[in-house]
Amino acid sequence: MVGTDQRIRPFLWRAERLYPDVEIVSRTDDAVHRYDYGTYGNRVARLANALAAADIGPGDRVASLCWNHHRHFETYFGVPCMGAQLHTINPNLPKSHVEYIVGDAEDDLLFVDPHERETLEALADSEAFESVQQYVVMGDEVPETSLDPVVDYESFLADHEPSYDWPDVDEDQPAGMCYTSGTTGKPKGVEYTQQMIWSYTMSTLTPQMLGITDADVVMPLVPMFHSTGWGFSWAATAAGAKQVYPGPSPDSADLTRLIEEEGVTLTAGVPTIWIDLLEYLETHDADISSLEQIVAGGAPVPESLIRRLDEEHGVEVLHAWGMTELTAIGTVAHLPPDIAAADAETRYTKRQKQGRIVPGLEFQVVGEDGDEVPWDDATVGELYVRGPSVTTEYYRCPEANAEDLTADPGGDRGGEGGEWLATGDLVTVDAEGYVTLVDRDNDIINSGGEWISSVELENAMMGHDTVSEATVVGVPHDRYQERPLGFVVTAEGATIDPDVLREELRERIRADYPKWWTPDEIRFVDEIPRTATGKFDKITLRDAYRDHDVETNLEPEE
Amino acid sequence: MVGTDQRIRPFLWRAERLYPDVEIVSRTDDAVHRYDYGTYGNRVARLANALAAADIGPGDRVASLCWNHHRHFETYFGVPCMGAQLHTINPNLPKSHVEYIVGDAEDDLLFVDPHERETLEALADSEAFESVQQYVVMGDEVPETSLDPVVDYESFLADHEPSYDWPDVDEDQPAGMCYTSGTTGKPKGVEYTQQMIWSYTMSTLTPQMLGITDADVVMPLVPMFHSTGWGFSWAATAAGAKQVYPGPSPDSADLTRLIEEEGVTLTAGVPTIWIDLLEYLETHDADISSLEQIVAGGAPVPESLIRRLDEEHGVEVLHAWGMTELTAIGTVAHLPPDIAAADAETRYTKRQKQGRIVPGLEFQVVGEDGDEVPWDDATVGELYVRGPSVTTEYYRCPEANAEDLTADPGGDRGGEGGEWLATGDLVTVDAEGYVTLVDRDNDIINSGGEWISSVELENAMMGHDTVSEATVVGVPHDRYQERPLGFVVTAEGATIDPDVLREELRERIRADYPKWWTPDEIRFVDEIPRTATGKFDKITLRDAYRDHDVETNLEPEE
Repeated sequence: MVGTDQRIRPFLWRAERLYPDVEIVSRTDDAVHRYDYGTYGNRVARLANALAAADIGPGDRVASLCWNHHRHFETYFGVPCMGAQLHTINPNLPKSHVEYIVGDAEDDLLFVDPHERETLEALADSEAFESVQQYVVMGDEVPETSLDPVVDYESFLADHEPSYDWPDVDEDQPAGMCYTSGTTGKPKGVEYTQQMIWSYTMSTLTPQMLGITDADVVMPLVPMFHSTGWGFSWAATAAGAKQVYPGPSPDSADLTRLIEEEGVTLTAGVPTIWIDLLEYLETHDADISSLEQIVAGGAPVPESLIRRLDEEHGVEVLHAWGMTELTAIGTVAHLPPDIAAADAETRYTKRQKQGRIVPGLEFQVVGEDGDEVPWDDATVGELYVRGPSVTTEYYRCPEANAEDLTADPGGDRGGEGGEWLATGDLVTVDAEGYVTLVDRDNDIINSGGEWISSVELENAMMGHDTVSEATVVGVPHDRYQERPLGFVVTAEGATIDPDVLREELRERIRADYPKWWTPDEIRFVDEIPRTATGKFDKITLRDAYRDHDVETNLEPEE
Repeated sequence: MVGTDQRIRPFLWRAERLYPDVEIVSRTDDAVHRYDYGTYGNRVARLANALAAADIGPGDRVASLCWNHHRHFETYFGVPCMGAQLHTINPNLPKSHVEYIVGDAEDDLLFVDPHERETLEALADSEAFESVQQYVVMGDEVPETSLDPVVDYESFLADHEPSYDWPDVDEDQPAGMCYTSGTTGKPKGVEYTQQMIWSYTMSTLTPQMLGITDADVVMPLVPMFHSTGWGFSWAATAAGAKQVYPGPSPDSADLTRLIEEEGVTLTAGVPTIWIDLLEYLETHDADISSLEQIVAGGAPVPESLIRRLDEEHGVEVLHAWGMTELTAIGTVAHLPPDIAAADAETRYTKRQKQGRIVPGLEFQVVGEDGDEVPWDDATVGELYVRGPSVTTEYYRCPEANAEDLTADPGGDRGGEGGEWLATGDLVTVDAEGYVTLVDRDNDIINSGGEWISSVELENAMMGHDTVSEATVVGVPHDRYQERPLGFVVTAEGATIDPDVLREELRERIRADYPKWWTPDEIRFVDEIPRTATGKFDKITLRDAYRDHDVETNLEPEE
């Protein structure tokens, strides 16, 4: 190390000093809150003082169960810049996961949105929560709650100075943390050092990823608990861009209004959001002409969506692929000049792929023979990635290191780990280096960008007396990309009415998991196909039901 | 460190794999050489094999005395990617400096352009060159030379394989090196680690610095021995941009032809080049409409130049400031949206300033009282910078560390060094954070972007029997921004004819220094003003001669 350590704080400093008057807008339940980077910087400093007063220091973990709003954004700089670690938790997770995650991370303080407090109330007395010293409810008053000790965010900040003697944090200091779903229920923790976030933020600024400038109005719409909200908050700040936070549960009307009134130029989210938005715009007059680019990812983006946003609204969809382990985005489907100048079919074909690797990262796609596959758009292999913003180590999880990290892509795994992350995604690569996702680990279902563990659902169902075997696979769905479809073999001699059993199985699942984990349809079969090694053959099942229409009973906002 | 090490090689890999057909063009003495990133990658691998065969390994230093062409570009990746360190040397330096530099760096192998070999021939037998094991002349034949052992570059590569088993180099491994002028003659070495170059390259890609994309045609025109040619070669490769190398001593006609024929969109260089180019275009028909941006720096850029390039040719001048210690660029005069939309006067006023800090770096401007100056566009202070691509240590030079690096900007220096680089530049900052250079260390003269040490000239002149005192200051010059003006007090009783003495002084200087170091004018005075501490008062002298017209006898191409 001969240069200065790579730290997050210079990004904040740059926005505070060069763009003190640029706005940060945040939608609340009933209004729009706005201030500027100058005020933001003062509040971040007050937050750091408040954390220090609450005995949070370098290396301590501060967790959040929050959606996208200005207070959550304040923790994005306030927590890591004072040397602590921001651990963002997905409020959509099953309670058992939140319990495991808080216990594993030993979080010291928890920020929580008022309407997400019920999850914590149910868990606060558990052993896993012993480390938690303080709850801070995001808002200016404490709602009725059993959480204790508890304070509202504004009171937490109120008496503190708007400046802070920021430390020169070491670049290896963990600054962020996020857990990712495992296939068998135990979430795996990914830590982001100051350096990883610095690297990722610089990468996000490059035109090869997003090319954010101070002329942009950025709406960080990807939930900030999902892979750091794809890093939008940090990069937009580094660029001095105006930011628009969509607040709690924005619907298409909210998003349209924010785009129109605030002049949003760039945003990002899972395909479901854009499918809904297109539908909304069909029946509502709105001017979203300020919107230049949408980054879509988290689940494969249908070509029709890319085409319609382009042709009907002049919006360029940047299809991207990433993972929690990569901090966030690793590939983006930008078009080089020759393809950008080609006919529409060629362009849409490329845009629909997951994209090309961003500068600074490397990938390999390794076939079953252990060799890199040819870039022929046809040969399938597993995608391996490495780079400065890609983790080389799961938190306290040597078995995940052994399984998912290796020094030898395509070689035997299960060893000491290594720099190369095995993504579990099966892909092809075309001649221009565009990666296409063709399949992935069959134990995980991606419902509208959120992950469901089929193994956990199977365990829940097989716990029922009259069930002998159960499995769940993901089948394609127009709105949610994928929904779980259950298969059950009843125990010999069982006489239970199928509809009663279906309802009982659903109840078992709902007791432990969010409603959206519940299979919309449960089918009774004589046997479940097995692979040569005796495991459920989910590939065969998924293929057989590829065109099966699952009627989901989820409300759009869930 | 939880992410992978930051290394240069992924940038090369990305260009080789994603942009194998994109061209690299290189002007030679009488033609244009072209190949693509695919071939380039193969040649870089052959170079690495050739270096390994020549016993160059990790940590060894490989030096170059070369201009901008494809072979020099091959060393930019070939040397550091195999783990060695590329030490770029300025062929314009006084021979005594080259001698000192090669000896200090203990270079193992030297690449040299054919027409620069004379410098090395004169020094090869010196003790300082003991470490040098091999000379490689850039070309396909060895010219008549006393260098030994010597081989031409093409023969050096000829028998080697076009693939290399690249090591995973540690991010702290020195990858580059460049010496910068000291005020008192002893150049100071700056090492660039893999990490510093990675950081700088990512920074260069951001729109806040240059925003290079694969749609750009980049002409790396800044000499590649000057602060890594401002890093253009690495960033253009990371972006997959077409590159156009201007070759040896390009004149305005060469540059115009390259821009026109290759469709150059982005280039960079010192103001002198653009002053010449404008003059050339006045009398020559040429279509340089492909050119979108010129980065101008290395010396202050006159507003008239910015205005004329914009109004007459539609070219945006990005004024930039940097230093060898920063890898290269630290500020760029981009315009935020409100200023970009303002009237021409406002825009040119901002564009003429040295610019705003790029993301990832920090600066402070500290006044005489040791406090940060207000950003009022008026209060002058010294500029301090730090960041991941800014050195925190001079090579084997604790006295320079103590003098130029500190943990406490504005505090006492001379201690242990620290992260903050004292640039020696005196600047103001305006309300929007634009830095303006108002003065700098008075012992250094910037002639067309190249540095002249006035102290060395003074020592040379004072060695003459009939000279009692001598000093040299830089005075403003239209073409070269600054030229040295000499002042001499003759010894009591000396009767030498002034013109004879002038000529003898010039001869003394030319014996040890390049012709362009020679003061164009030497004035005889009764006494040289002194400061309170008894040093030559160069500020007073410079002020008195601010409007003095120096007739330079330099040829344009020198």
